[in-house]
Amino acid sequence: MQLLEEKIRREGRVLGTEVLKVDNFLNHQVDPELMAAMGREFAQLFADKGITKVMTVESSGIAPAVFTALELQVPMVFARKKKSLTLTDDNYTADVYSFTKQETNHIIVDKRFISSNDKVLLIDDFLANGQAVQGMMEILDAADADLVGVGIVIEKTFQKGRELLDEKGIHVESLARISAFEDGQVVFAD
Amino acid sequence: MQLLEEKIRREGRVLGTEVLKVDNFLNHQVDPELMAAMGREFAQLFADKGITKVMTVESSGIAPAVFTALELQVPMVFARKKKSLTLTDDNYTADVYSFTKQETNHIIVDKRFISSNDKVLLIDDFLANGQAVQGMMEILDAADADLVGVGIVIEKTFQKGRELLDEKGIHVESLARISAFEDGQVVFAD
Repeated sequence: MQLLEEKIRREGRVLGTEVLKVDNFLNHQVDPELMAAMGREFAQLFADKGITKVMTVESSGIAPAVFTALELQVPMVFARKKKSLTLTDDNYTADVYSFTKQETNHIIVDKRFISSNDKVLLIDDFLANGQAVQGMMEILDAADADLVGVGIVIEKTFQKGRELLDEKGIHVESLARISAFEDGQVVFAD
Repeated sequence: MQLLEEKIRREGRVLGTEVLKVDNFLNHQVDPELMAAMGREFAQLFADKGITKVMTVESSGIAPAVFTALELQVPMVFARKKKSLTLTDDNYTADVYSFTKQETNHIIVDKRFISSNDKVLLIDDFLANGQAVQGMMEILDAADADLVGVGIVIEKTFQKGRELLDEKGIHVESLARISAFEDGQVVFAD
């Protein structure tokens, strides 16, 4: 997505060889026009799939996910992140390990909001090692819901998340694909 | 706002005499059409005020705030919530006490995203005791930014938040005002 790549080039900040900060338009300050454009793009990429729900994890996934859901005219569900869990029968949960923070969080979705009748599109801001997406997939499995596909704002192709999803035959669409950071600059994949 | 009041009557769940659960359309599952309508409403209520930024706190404020920002054609900033703080010169912080959870969280905004040139509209999902809004106001004070007003999705008029803001002469607009819960039913203020 041209608009997003330009924004990343202009406003993204590369830290070292693995980290891209996009907190001035995506995950702290948010550019609403860009979010709306991304929602239209995701909706088009996954059109005619009979999607009944868009799902993401709080907080950075919420803005792109809600605009995608608006375009698809379906509800959006965001999983809650928790450090500790009180297990009840009311929720689906999964563990999500963060390589960056080197800690495990839990994600939680109320059973009322995902059912075996749902065809779900997962949206997330980053795809790196794929832990958050895999956690959401566990929840869909537990709910016996169908995974239609995964929409990612920024994919880092040099980390293992994309490969893990490709191996499972999952339909993944990323709006920007980054193959490397060189001399503080972003290199986009073809 | 008629649409919101009807949604609350139809889908809100009253727990005891103080709690309204709206997790099926606002703060876990999200109705994107309703969020878009609320964004248009807030933008209209605070039109012609020269707003430069919309600010909220993660996570439940993000959806209404981003649609408001889209309508006003300005960026949205969401404050991050943290249990513990590493103080640095890069951030504004404030403490927010939760009466429900009986614990203090910190909210954090990067200094790059709020400046003394900003005229800020605060958006939040609930106004009860006003702690989150007051935390955001502390951050605006520290940044020497102007507070233009406060937009609330659901106000509970019987808790002290509204009074605290009225005393300070702040322009508050709430899309639904609840004066009581009686026999498990919501009573709206006139």
